[in-house]
Amino acid sequence: MTGEPAGGSRLVRPRVGHIQFLNCLPLYWGLVHSGALMDVELTKDTPDRLNEALVRGDLDIGPISLVEYLRHADDLIALPNIAVGSDGPVLSVALISAVPLERIRSVALGSTSRTGVLLAQILLEDELGLAPTYARMPPDLPLMLREADAAVLIGDVALRAVHDAERAGSAHPLHVVDLGAAWRNWSGLPMVFAVWAARRDFAQAHPGVVKEVHDAFRGSLDLALRQLDTVARHAARWEAFDAATLTRYFTTLDFSLGDRQLEGLMAFAGRAAARGVVPPRARIVFADV
Amino acid sequence: MTGEPAGGSRLVRPRVGHIQFLNCLPLYWGLVHSGALMDVELTKDTPDRLNEALVRGDLDIGPISLVEYLRHADDLIALPNIAVGSDGPVLSVALISAVPLERIRSVALGSTSRTGVLLAQILLEDELGLAPTYARMPPDLPLMLREADAAVLIGDVALRAVHDAERAGSAHPLHVVDLGAAWRNWSGLPMVFAVWAARRDFAQAHPGVVKEVHDAFRGSLDLALRQLDTVARHAARWEAFDAATLTRYFTTLDFSLGDRQLEGLMAFAGRAAARGVVPPRARIVFADV
Repeated sequence: MTGEPAGGSRLVRPRVGHIQFLNCLPLYWGLVHSGALMDVELTKDTPDRLNEALVRGDLDIGPISLVEYLRHADDLIALPNIAVGSDGPVLSVALISAVPLERIRSVALGSTSRTGVLLAQILLEDELGLAPTYARMPPDLPLMLREADAAVLIGDVALRAVHDAERAGSAHPLHVVDLGAAWRNWSGLPMVFAVWAARRDFAQAHPGVVKEVHDAFRGSLDLALRQLDTVARHAARWEAFDAATLTRYFTTLDFSLGDRQLEGLMAFAGRAAARGVVPPRARIVFADV
Repeated sequence: MTGEPAGGSRLVRPRVGHIQFLNCLPLYWGLVHSGALMDVELTKDTPDRLNEALVRGDLDIGPISLVEYLRHADDLIALPNIAVGSDGPVLSVALISAVPLERIRSVALGSTSRTGVLLAQILLEDELGLAPTYARMPPDLPLMLREADAAVLIGDVALRAVHDAERAGSAHPLHVVDLGAAWRNWSGLPMVFAVWAARRDFAQAHPGVVKEVHDAFRGSLDLALRQLDTVARHAARWEAFDAATLTRYFTTLDFSLGDRQLEGLMAFAGRAAARGVVPPRARIVFADV
């Protein structure tokens, strides 16, 4: 990594967010093993809290839920070619119902992250013609289903629920809808759940740092993706999933942001705008890195 | 790293503390570059807050001020061959006075960490025969010296103050006493400011994990010490010191805990016990790693 133009004052390490879910473990592995971690002030947290921190200006760069990015696009600038998405099943963004889908009348939301929630709303309201009520709750599936007909979960708890449902097969008492797969069914496109963005004021003041962080992220991800078996085997020691399950999850996720992913992103942005959740002409603007 | 005996339940990553001061930057460098960071749940914080967290049981393993270790030795077990100390000047534990030392009547303490504070008290009371008052304050030197004749600083702010005093030479308006050098003058021995310890209950339940963390720490430190110029050059980009100053600091620090260091530690423990700050027969017990 190289510095800002010579003669400038001493730099401050960029304050960077990191999602402390399994979906971003390959990125973290790469940040550690490339040594790039030394050059950022990393805050690990849930996606919801990282969204808030980036919007509030407590972070300079970080992942952000697609809907939150679109709602705050004036203050943010996206990093190209890195995202968390899926081209079909995602395994970790799920609607889980204790009743047949068409009978869902109440939904517990395990996250404020609007992207997963909005996908569930599109499914229930636009596709199934239902009008359920929604309530935010801690992401604890049994508790959620005691209070509501269905639950929207994201992240590791969703992965666990999908995993358990798959293993139980038809004996499983719950209906599990993979919202990445559902989106693909309607749209024929990949889904982008989160992008990485820098605060626009930070990017204007420190374009070199934004480029470096982007290079480090992309390089770290590529490093990890080249040795996913090792990443999964190592992580399986500490995580509640075996190495095969982790490898499958990591390869199911789509960390790219190419033309098809952008097409999916814009299609989703259109539906979000139609529902009034994001501004009508919200669009994604990329940093010139 | 190897796991616990086969057949055991899934492990939980050990909760490990890390001092977010420059003195522990070589250790962090090693943890990143060896990949060992993947196997711990690292909490970075000030020494004071890490002391409290380890004593309270919010951390399983971490650095702890020597005095705090001795006060809580029943609940803790030390890791061999790793410490933060110095055999002479330490550069970052300092008494800084606006008046000649013999005229000090009030002292502002920039940390609750008892080891540095106790060294200053030994200097002022036992060696100089003074009886100043003490008050805790945030570690901001100009503010401290507005309220008191002298200040005790540890860590990066102390390093800055010592550095500025050295550069100003005899023109410097403040009297700076390096407390590592002062201890060496009285005792002829190295000073140990902090040791690493595990909670005793954690070590009994997970001896294999404690051994692994110790191996990882020691290996990470050795990795960094073999390439200190690289560590310093890299760190100088972000820190408020140039690479030469950082290299000097890292080589001034003594991360070992051999026979001489233990002799210094026991001599200090004796003085602490004589002052009633630690139990009379407080001693250090090492984990069998």
